[in-house]
Formats: sequence, structure tokens, C-alpha cells
Amino acid sequence: MTGEMASHEAGEMMVENREWVLKEYVSEGLPTSHHLKLQTAKLSTVPDGHLMFRILWISVDPYTRTQMTGREEGLYAPQFELNQAARAFAIGEVIQSKDVSYSVGDIVVIPFCPVAEYCVKPADLFLRKIDPTPGVSELDYLTALGVPGFAAWVGIVVLGDPKPGENVFISAAAGGVGVFAGQLAKLRGCRVVGSTGSDEKVKFLKEELGYDEAFNYKTETDFDAALAKYFPNGIDIYLDNVGGKMLEAVLNHVNVRARIPLCGMISQYNKVWTEREGVRNLLNMVGKDVRMEGFMIGSYLHRFGEFMEEVIGYLKEGKMSTKQKIYHGIESFLESICSLFTGSNAGKVVIQVNKPMKP
Amino acid sequence: MTGEMASHEAGEMMVENREWVLKEYVSEGLPTSHHLKLQTAKLSTVPDGHLMFRILWISVDPYTRTQMTGREEGLYAPQFELNQAARAFAIGEVIQSKDVSYSVGDIVVIPFCPVAEYCVKPADLFLRKIDPTPGVSELDYLTALGVPGFAAWVGIVVLGDPKPGENVFISAAAGGVGVFAGQLAKLRGCRVVGSTGSDEKVKFLKEELGYDEAFNYKTETDFDAALAKYFPNGIDIYLDNVGGKMLEAVLNHVNVRARIPLCGMISQYNKVWTEREGVRNLLNMVGKDVRMEGFMIGSYLHRFGEFMEEVIGYLKEGKMSTKQKIYHGIESFLESICSLFTGSNAGKVVIQVNKPMKP
Repeated sequence: MTGEMASHEAGEMMVENREWVLKEYVSEGLPTSHHLKLQTAKLSTVPDGHLMFRILWISVDPYTRTQMTGREEGLYAPQFELNQAARAFAIGEVIQSKDVSYSVGDIVVIPFCPVAEYCVKPADLFLRKIDPTPGVSELDYLTALGVPGFAAWVGIVVLGDPKPGENVFISAAAGGVGVFAGQLAKLRGCRVVGSTGSDEKVKFLKEELGYDEAFNYKTETDFDAALAKYFPNGIDIYLDNVGGKMLEAVLNHVNVRARIPLCGMISQYNKVWTEREGVRNLLNMVGKDVRMEGFMIGSYLHRFGEFMEEVIGYLKEGKMSTKQKIYHGIESFLESICSLFTGSNAGKVVIQVNKPMKP
Repeated sequence: MTGEMASHEAGEMMVENREWVLKEYVSEGLPTSHHLKLQTAKLSTVPDGHLMFRILWISVDPYTRTQMTGREEGLYAPQFELNQAARAFAIGEVIQSKDVSYSVGDIVVIPFCPVAEYCVKPADLFLRKIDPTPGVSELDYLTALGVPGFAAWVGIVVLGDPKPGENVFISAAAGGVGVFAGQLAKLRGCRVVGSTGSDEKVKFLKEELGYDEAFNYKTETDFDAALAKYFPNGIDIYLDNVGGKMLEAVLNHVNVRARIPLCGMISQYNKVWTEREGVRNLLNMVGKDVRMEGFMIGSYLHRFGEFMEEVIGYLKEGKMSTKQKIYHGIESFLESICSLFTGSNAGKVVIQVNKPMKP
């Protein structure tokens, strides 16, 4: 698939590696081929205590956009360095090991992985080897068991603290986080409504994910009216993935002691903050005792084991559906990250970079 | 002081009573004599189980403004009925009792009291008789031990959860709530900075209340620059009493896991919500794990005993200063409520309606 060249010389393996390099920060709008370039370099040396990976899957997430602005604000995610590879969560197959804990063929979750075909990484605590588990696929570790699944779990379970019968609203409901958030809320006995960007995705939410209701925010553009219709009894939990006008509309429909976990604000990432949509009705939070709470999943790593146990259980029992939009080949990274902001995908966006050597 | 007329007929006492009646809702801006009229009526019948009060003190609070808009939003406080008296917290002296638990001369805290010179009220659970306590004045029950003191305590102690050495910012710091909030944060070992509306009040905050720093938001109008100057180590707790641009500026200076109790938003009460200042940088809450939480003190009544015990202790030990701006006579209600929005007062605004019969 990728024009891979491998040669063995004195135990070293040399590969020609393509990677996406950030050439210029993206102050506003979407990244283009002006900002991100696919470059080729050779990878050869694997120092002691390091591993060489063939990258199988790369996770494409909205927050990655915020690492390309050159500004520390909003998510406060570390900015990519110019002339260095962009980074993302990935799954790789060990093709060379200079660490006793890893063998060739091991499948590993790699955080902060270069967006590339191959990489060399120290065998440190950030890596997580995947043990084959019946009912759980490799790709699940980037989706239900990865960043979006954990974000959905922290938002719904930890901060949302849902009670059976409560009314839960999820925006970007067919997106990477939304897919799992809605199912987690349903599994806790809530009534769940989602907003999404197409009629096809409305159908997907209701028919495949079990959402009670869903609406297309591109056609039901009066959000206040839409929320009045879908929440005659008000909103108890709103998992916010978009910010802006939708968040403002929600604040006109919250119940007393509503919880609003802020997971991210995809409608706002391509703008400088002074150009973002202001929320004018925060005063409603006072009268209704509403709690709004931003979160980064890195702050909840002490709950990661609990999350894994719960969600692996659901996957094994067939209680949780996953949905991916798969792009193919490392060359698709620019297209795939831009696609997050046009609402054209259903499910978690990933790139299949290489197929595993071992079937 | 008030042209009181009292006559006794068959055990009944008749008084001529002046009260402020809401004639028209105040959609935007400040109330005027067009909306609120001082009217005279006779009060005579005291049914069984009821008490007649001579009103000594009336509490004048910003939230009262939100009960005059005719709209249920924002604080969601019950709207005053047209052609009925406005309501407020008050302290009254019993002048006629048809309930065995009360005697003439008892001093009582009266919630939802008509803004008037006299009133008749059922002797129900809402009333609270004041027992004379050394070091605690009657008026303290409307200030340090009343609505503003309890609001400050819920905001700082319950929701703010301050740790020694944390950086605390309080807006409207010389206002009814701010005066106590700053002292509560200082008593917990925090560094406290306040914003207020005059140089005289800046001096008051620093010299009389022990604020570490304070600034005049009317002269230091670049809030971002002011907060950068006064919070070189960022803000851990912001007790928001104003909303709008100040809240937005704070979100550019919050530390990880900052808490923002929303007590009220005085800069926004005179506007319809669509005209209010939008907050554009809520995304910063995500990256910094910030919690923002609105509260109504009525939701924390289960903590009222704990609050009273703590603050009565401070008052007895001389550890807490109180500060009032006292208006005189029932006729001053319109002027006094408008004064809340011009930043012309220091301390809690109250009206002394009558002096007690018993010295």
C-alpha cells in the first residue's frame, strides 16, 4: 500500500517513511497543503530500549486541529513544532525491538505518534501492548477504548452522573465521542437526543445507536425551537461537543441542577477566540443551579482502569456498537482532518495506514 | 419618621401603611416612579396565627431587580405580581401577636416581606426570631448572617473550596456579597483580589477588609491587562457577581481546575438576554478543567446551620467586619435599588424604615 522498502543490514532495518510535517501554523480556518506537507525520510537507527513500528491505524480527532494554531489557548494542548511531524494516537505493529518486553509482531497503542507510516519510539510507560481479547478488535483501542470512548465516559459517567429517566442531549452526536456518549447514557436508562449534520446521520443515531430522538441542525436551524420540541421536560445533562449557538440554546432549556460537561467545541476551533460566538445567557446557570465543567481526559487517567473494565464488558456482551469512517493510506491525513469540520462523516475517523504483516 | 398612626379598637391595632407597589414590569433599564409607586393603605385585621410587624430594616439586593422584569429567565426568581407590593428580606418588630410563640417586642427576620412600613404575616416556618447575642447586632441578620453573607459562604466555602495560598478574585468586591466573600477567603488563607467601582472603594477593600489587592474597573478598563498584573500566578477561584466582559477576561487567566461560582451578574440584569455581553472563550474551560457553577442560596438551606455557626463565631471574635450603606425611610426604596447598579455604594445596602419601639 505504501511503497514500503525494507532492507536488513547488520540487524538494522531501514525503511523509507512518509510523514506529515507542519510547515506553518494555521491561525484561522482549515489546514491546507500549504501548512501540512507529506515528506519522505529514511528511518533506520533503533537505539537500545527503543522499538520500530509499522503504523497500522491513526486516530483523527478534532483536538489535533488545536495543536496547529501556534497559540496556547482553548484546549491548551501542546503546539506541534514547526518542521516536525504532526502527532496523533496510533496503533502500530512492532517490526524491530531493542527492548526485552516487546517482540516483533506485538500490537501496541502509541500516543503522540508521528502521523507517518513508520516510527521509532522508546519502550516507555506511554506505550500500551494490546492483548488479544475475544469480541474486542485492535481498532477498538482507538475508538470505544481510546480517546473518544474515554472522553465520552468521563463526560457522561463521571461529570454527567446520569440517573435513570434523565434527559440527555448530545451534540455532534454521530461524531467520534457522540457515538459512545449516547450509548453510555442509554445504558444508564436515560432518554437521549442527539444533534447531527445530515438526515442520514439522524437515521443512523436512531436506528443503529438507539437514540430516542435526533435532529439535523443544518435543517432545524432554530435551535431554541428544536430543543423545546425534543425536550418538553427540559435537559438534565448536555454533553457539549460544539460550543457556540447550540450551547447558548441549551441554556434556555436546562433543568435545575443540570450538568454540562464541556468536551470540546468543534464549531469554534477554526476561529481566533475574539471571533468566536459569545454565549449571552450564562445567567440562566445561576437561577437553575447549573454546573458547567470543562475536561481534558488526561486529568482523569486515575479512572482509566475503571473505564476499560466497563467498556470492554459492553463490547464482549455486544452491548456497544462502534462506527468508523475509515480513510486509507497516510496521504489521506489532510483530507481526513478537514472532513471533521464539514460534518461529512459518521462515526470515529481513522486512517488505515498499513495492514498488519501477520494476518 | 413615617407618619405612623396607631389606634386600638377592641384589641385591634390600625396603622396607616405605606408600601411600594409594582405598577408595570421593567423590561429593560432601571425602574422609575412610573413602574414603582409608594401607596398608602390601612392595615388592621390580624387573623389568628398571624403577627403584625413594624418593619425596622429592609434588605436591598440586586436580585430583586430580576423579579420586576415580567420574564422568567436568568435567576428564575418568582416575578412580583402587578399592583402588589414588591418583596424583600426584612427585620421587623412584633407589634401585635395572635400566635402563642411570639410576643410583642420580638425581633424577627421576615423573608418575602412587603417593601412597606408595616406588614401582617402568618407565624410560619419562614419567620426566624432573633435571640439577642453579644457581639451580634439585629442588622447582622440581614447582612453577614443574611442573604449576602450566606451567598458569599456558599460561593466561597461550598463551591469555591479554597485551599491556603490559592488566588481568589472577587468582582463587585465592595458590594453586599463581596464584602463577606473576600473576608471568608482571607480567613482560609487565600490571596484575595477584588474589583470595584471607585478609588475610594479600592482603599476600603485594602485597608478595612484586608484584600491583598484591589482595582477600579472604571479606570483600569483593560480587564485582561489588569488580571495579568494582579494575578501573575493565575486565578484559582473567581466568585462572579457581574458576568459579561469581566467573566470573559477571567477565563483568559484561570489556572487548571479553577472554580467559578456564579453568584449573580449585576452588569447584565437591566438587559434582555439577547442584548447581554456574550462570553466568547468558554473553550478555555476545556483545556484547563475549569468548573463554573451557578447557585441560588435556596438550594443550600441544608447547610444554613453550619454557615450560621461559623459566621456568628467570626462576629463574636471580631474577625469579620460588616459594612452597610443605610438609606432612611420607606420612601428611599426606589433610589436605593437603583443605586445598586451605579456602583455608588460601599457595603450592603439596607433601608432603615422605623426605629424599634424598645430601645
